[in-house]
Amino acid sequence: MKRIITIGREFGSGGHEIGKLTAEALGIAFYDKELLAAVAKESGFSERYIEEGGEYATATNSLLFNIAVSSGYNTPGKGLTPSDQVYVLQSNLIRDLAEETPCVIVGRCADYILRERTDCLHVFLYADMDYRERRIVERYGQTKMTPENRLKDKDKRRRVFYRHYTGRDWGSPHNYDLCLNTGAVGTERCVEILTDLYRTL
Amino acid sequence: MKRIITIGREFGSGGHEIGKLTAEALGIAFYDKELLAAVAKESGFSERYIEEGGEYATATNSLLFNIAVSSGYNTPGKGLTPSDQVYVLQSNLIRDLAEETPCVIVGRCADYILRERTDCLHVFLYADMDYRERRIVERYGQTKMTPENRLKDKDKRRRVFYRHYTGRDWGSPHNYDLCLNTGAVGTERCVEILTDLYRTL
Repeated sequence: MKRIITIGREFGSGGHEIGKLTAEALGIAFYDKELLAAVAKESGFSERYIEEGGEYATATNSLLFNIAVSSGYNTPGKGLTPSDQVYVLQSNLIRDLAEETPCVIVGRCADYILRERTDCLHVFLYADMDYRERRIVERYGQTKMTPENRLKDKDKRRRVFYRHYTGRDWGSPHNYDLCLNTGAVGTERCVEILTDLYRTL
Repeated sequence: MKRIITIGREFGSGGHEIGKLTAEALGIAFYDKELLAAVAKESGFSERYIEEGGEYATATNSLLFNIAVSSGYNTPGKGLTPSDQVYVLQSNLIRDLAEETPCVIVGRCADYILRERTDCLHVFLYADMDYRERRIVERYGQTKMTPENRLKDKDKRRRVFYRHYTGRDWGSPHNYDLCLNTGAVGTERCVEILTDLYRTL
């Protein structure tokens, strides 16, 4: 039995949707990049918390903010870049969420941040370019960039971000317990495999 | 429903065993590197077939040899290195086996050789160094080389072999439909996932 699923995913692979469906099937919480960013931002994480050295904690009702602030480790220092500060705060947040509640976490190097825990299932979701190109055009429409270039650009950003904060190669199987080609395996079967492994490993 | 499973695997990951158990569970044939090499050698593939331009086919009873010889494509030329000749012949053999009979094929770049077929499940099996070190010492005993160096050496050979003949990166998820960490997922669950996907995809 696992408590947490972390999902790394290529843009357009449907990893976000598979994460959400898996969380729903298991009846556990779901956190994605946008939610974590919003929580950090709304709680004043990236600026106010840092300026006020944690005292801002008393001015918010956010559970997430409070548990992140109350964690003693990795308090962001003034020497860090804004991007690093946000990363450190989100890392604390992810660690505390993992401690507090069973959940699925998509993105944000969560596999790396939670690598010491033995109750996590670490997953990477990917797909062929064709599949992903079709999917992003269906979902997000056309833009000035070609679908292929949008994918390459986004993948590159994720690879650089992951490398910067973990020192590891994004999407290298050894970072994960399993990697699924969502186009080949299909959304439904991916969800089945993940829920099944979560319950039984 | 798939017809073929190809398995790429890191040394010590248990990929060979998982392939064999999966073939048994599905009641289909199993071919590994050693068997394919033996068939090629016994049939005189690497030397006699090439020297006699295929006429040797009439002098053998080997079904495998006959189907490989009868395939018109990729006839090895005299300009190839012995290693390349064996690769070409084994590629023909793998293509014809795939055409003839449902099977599990371990190693030999089978994922690449059969990449145009839509009835294959392509799998990569890997594991952490610790798990693999323990496993090779249990299975094959100690040698003068440390377990870690034996793994690195073997992985390197497979990577170079795969790169040479396919132009692709060995163990990169995009070559496969799924990648399983055998140490984390466990032999039994790996076999279940593979048999299940084989039957239902």
